[in-house]
Amino acid sequence: MVDKIYGIGVGPGDTDLLTLKSVKILNSVETIFVPISKEGKASVAYEIIKGIIPEDKKVVELLFPMSKDIEFLQKHWENAAKEIINEKGTVAVVTIGDATLYSTFSYVWQIFNKNNIEVEVINGISSPFAAAASLNIPLVEGDEKLAILPQGKDLERYLDEFDTLIVMKTNDLEEKLKNLKNKKDSFLVGVVNRVTSSSQKISLGKIDEIDFEPFKDYLSLAIIKKLK
Amino acid sequence: MVDKIYGIGVGPGDTDLLTLKSVKILNSVETIFVPISKEGKASVAYEIIKGIIPEDKKVVELLFPMSKDIEFLQKHWENAAKEIINEKGTVAVVTIGDATLYSTFSYVWQIFNKNNIEVEVINGISSPFAAAASLNIPLVEGDEKLAILPQGKDLERYLDEFDTLIVMKTNDLEEKLKNLKNKKDSFLVGVVNRVTSSSQKISLGKIDEIDFEPFKDYLSLAIIKKLK
Repeated sequence: MVDKIYGIGVGPGDTDLLTLKSVKILNSVETIFVPISKEGKASVAYEIIKGIIPEDKKVVELLFPMSKDIEFLQKHWENAAKEIINEKGTVAVVTIGDATLYSTFSYVWQIFNKNNIEVEVINGISSPFAAAASLNIPLVEGDEKLAILPQGKDLERYLDEFDTLIVMKTNDLEEKLKNLKNKKDSFLVGVVNRVTSSSQKISLGKIDEIDFEPFKDYLSLAIIKKLK
Repeated sequence: MVDKIYGIGVGPGDTDLLTLKSVKILNSVETIFVPISKEGKASVAYEIIKGIIPEDKKVVELLFPMSKDIEFLQKHWENAAKEIINEKGTVAVVTIGDATLYSTFSYVWQIFNKNNIEVEVINGISSPFAAAASLNIPLVEGDEKLAILPQGKDLERYLDEFDTLIVMKTNDLEEKLKNLKNKKDSFLVGVVNRVTSSSQKISLGKIDEIDFEPFKDYLSLAIIKKLK
């Protein structure tokens, strides 16, 4: 059985955004588990770390499929957790971004906690922060309020109330924002796809100035700031 | 005049949470500006980086006082920006946490942007994420919504609407939460002071189980999760 599990956020894409702590732990553990969304598909998290780990390190792929079927997902999370728990020694499970924010790791994390298995989460740079840096704008200052809305849930309700909104996954954001009509010029919108990776795309402007087409895959997010 | 300015988030306290990129840049720049809140007071950001920079690196303190007087602050931000702009070569300005989230850097950042000076922000680990890792709980999963409220602004309004609330600065959080009366058992509260530093304090539990006294200084934050 496993001794200790590290849940490591490897950041949004650039290997240089790994922390010193993550690099040390990735080099010291016996096994590294990397998530894949489909058999045969490359692991984004593995691509980020492969340059900083020894070539002979034991790396095991774990299937975390994307689905809306909770029972189906639950079965995969339990299988993944079981495989990790059955490994010997100290292991790391990597996840893109940060392990505490909408991460695949959080599902197995809860199973480990229920089974009293020692877990330590090592933070990584989260994509909304990397997006703000790439767009060259602060997220919030002073006493401003910020909300993070997955898939723009309840966006219309919070646009007026929050200084900054972050929308994770932006495939239908364009339609949501076009409904704002005469209020459209009150916001500055930054959209980012695969932030800090070699294929990063970014765009910043008023709603009508943005071409939303390149930002409809699942590794996109938006920062919406109320103009003062 | 300065060639390029890096705004570097140095994370919440642990030097090992610096990114590889930050370490490279801090070693390559000619001058590092470190914020202090008072003359003669140590810079928290400098304490985080001092172990990883050469002893002969030029380090300059910048005064960013704490005040509610906006005109007074504005004057200090302009002085700080001027001092940075007048430096030769490539420089770094460090800030605790991440430079995009409630950072002292954001005020000088805007002055640099207005003056068309090249700025690159390098992200750091932000304290709410480090807090979740220390408390061993995820912030949000799946389609959960998260809000960050400085000093618990509008806390009562959002407690029911958001799955997770982060309150930055928790000096009056206890009074705010005690008003909830019969709803008090619906929330799990984690409070953290000086997260990841050698003097870190943390507490996790229902509202009535927490002693809020040690969490009344300005480097404290709370994570409030709605129980399901």
